[in-house]
Amino acid sequence: MSAGRDRVERAVERRRELVNEGIAEMLPVQRPERLYEASRYLLDAGGKRLRPAVLLLAAEAIEGVEPFEGDYRSFGTDDVDVMAAAVSIEVIQSFTLIHDDIMDDDDVRRGVPAVHREYDLETAILAGDTLYSKAFEYMLDADAPADRTVRALDELAQTCTRICEGQALDVEFEERPTVAPEEYLDMVEFKTAVLYAAAAAIPAILLGADEEVVEALRGYGLDVGRAFQIQDDLLDLTTPSETLGKQRGSDLIEGKRTIVSLHAREQGVDVDTLVPHERESVTEADIDDAVAELSAAGSIEYAREMAHEYVERGKNRLTVLPEGEARETLVDIADYLVEREY
Amino acid sequence: MSAGRDRVERAVERRRELVNEGIAEMLPVQRPERLYEASRYLLDAGGKRLRPAVLLLAAEAIEGVEPFEGDYRSFGTDDVDVMAAAVSIEVIQSFTLIHDDIMDDDDVRRGVPAVHREYDLETAILAGDTLYSKAFEYMLDADAPADRTVRALDELAQTCTRICEGQALDVEFEERPTVAPEEYLDMVEFKTAVLYAAAAAIPAILLGADEEVVEALRGYGLDVGRAFQIQDDLLDLTTPSETLGKQRGSDLIEGKRTIVSLHAREQGVDVDTLVPHERESVTEADIDDAVAELSAAGSIEYAREMAHEYVERGKNRLTVLPEGEARETLVDIADYLVEREY
Repeated sequence: MSAGRDRVERAVERRRELVNEGIAEMLPVQRPERLYEASRYLLDAGGKRLRPAVLLLAAEAIEGVEPFEGDYRSFGTDDVDVMAAAVSIEVIQSFTLIHDDIMDDDDVRRGVPAVHREYDLETAILAGDTLYSKAFEYMLDADAPADRTVRALDELAQTCTRICEGQALDVEFEERPTVAPEEYLDMVEFKTAVLYAAAAAIPAILLGADEEVVEALRGYGLDVGRAFQIQDDLLDLTTPSETLGKQRGSDLIEGKRTIVSLHAREQGVDVDTLVPHERESVTEADIDDAVAELSAAGSIEYAREMAHEYVERGKNRLTVLPEGEARETLVDIADYLVEREY
Repeated sequence: MSAGRDRVERAVERRRELVNEGIAEMLPVQRPERLYEASRYLLDAGGKRLRPAVLLLAAEAIEGVEPFEGDYRSFGTDDVDVMAAAVSIEVIQSFTLIHDDIMDDDDVRRGVPAVHREYDLETAILAGDTLYSKAFEYMLDADAPADRTVRALDELAQTCTRICEGQALDVEFEERPTVAPEEYLDMVEFKTAVLYAAAAAIPAILLGADEEVVEALRGYGLDVGRAFQIQDDLLDLTTPSETLGKQRGSDLIEGKRTIVSLHAREQGVDVDTLVPHERESVTEADIDDAVAELSAAGSIEYAREMAHEYVERGKNRLTVLPEGEARETLVDIADYLVEREY
């Protein structure tokens, strides 16, 4: 483990605890209890809180303060509640997961039943819808000067629209005979990367940073968000099922497109027959053979290189920020996203 | 038909056409097409656009201008796009209907298949989610001064949260043995009335009206919204199925609680056995007998009087506004909501 990786895990872990406190404070279980319990259920089940960590670190890097030196609930010269903004972003992430699990009819998330399994379809839809509006309330709670709040809400609303468009493209692609890798990357940008972009850009907007800083941080978020999704696709192939918390190779088994399988198809690999499509009859050896074939086609290396390129590009954008530990940790987080094993 | 009613129908009809143009302009069908087609589907299927009409009339009443004298896209001294705000409110209404139909597993809405029937569950959830964020985008598009925009978005976000809470209470009540009429009225306030309140209050906020005016219009919206829902419950009992677009008495058949059935239960009527619970075996005569029994218990009159009381209270709040045709039409709309037959 590199020193950077060690540092990023500590940095993320300490902010995760603070974000969890923020969630418990800002989203209490109140009447109607079942609705709010369901809204909290997935948030309480876990999650690394990477996006809020990026938001809080970006805030620290912008202001050029030492880690945890500033008060997250009253940050910078305008006393902005950047924790409220961080919770807003995490709550959007949680809302999309709840609705995605309904759409994909997934049973398990973060090692616990999906919300529509633990509760029911109605409650899961409503819990997602509640988190959606709460995210806007929290961004307002950040209590930045009005013109910046308007911009941050605009960023948040447009981000949510993009996520929906990305999810719709994902559904559309599943029904299409062929998808170009470039189309897939656009979908990934919409579905995943835009929320990292919002997490990185919104503190700059709320704190009144220069436009150059807003743009650099948005670009950083987009790049690391893309790298994150590509790494997710790779991990599905390379990480043992126990570590992954779900069947290794499940994207292949379910015939789900990834940047790896799309590249392999372009290289002439018959991706659809790499593994059996019945989960019960797939062995670890089947997955190993499939990975070997994808590797021989250069598809795993292709995805790995692409993830690394995005990470490098994202890191380079941070040079507009003041030097310091917060900026270094944002660099480390970018590296971590493509080094992580789950 | 009263002169007021004639006037309200003309006033709503003319604004409806303009709102429909606004929707077509602001929510074009774009990539991914299926998502945007599904998002437009219910909006295009019809609807009276009562909430946007209230918003536009409130804007005119506040500014004291003659109907249609101002430019809705650049209204008042600050050039506020009140049409964008009106479309925002209608889009929220449409999002809640799409998700409600999934939750209630309803097949038909506005005489056409519900979105999850015409498309599929995934697309319907996503279409609702897309309209949700678009509503926030449109409220930003109103382009009011930043401090007012922040307040309007706060009103919008809190309204959405309340609607979710109201829907959750509705679900909860269905599973409870008894519900007091007061609890039911609270649920109605959350589920239905708050969106009328937002429609009436938001133009006052965007146009920078006095706090007294904002409060009066919010109260008007709450009152007419409550009256609207009570009248809906009455219409289910009294309007022929053909006019209603669905089976008359369906609330009784489905055992759905309404202010009428809750009052009757308190009077000792055995509401659960009033009509058979299998839709196929219910005759018009069954419904007539049930209505006669509810009427004998005073429950229909009770609901009617309550709706009228809310309407009178709502109308009285409007005296803070300048006199003129817009204010008179808001008065007429309140009357219309309890006089309408479908």
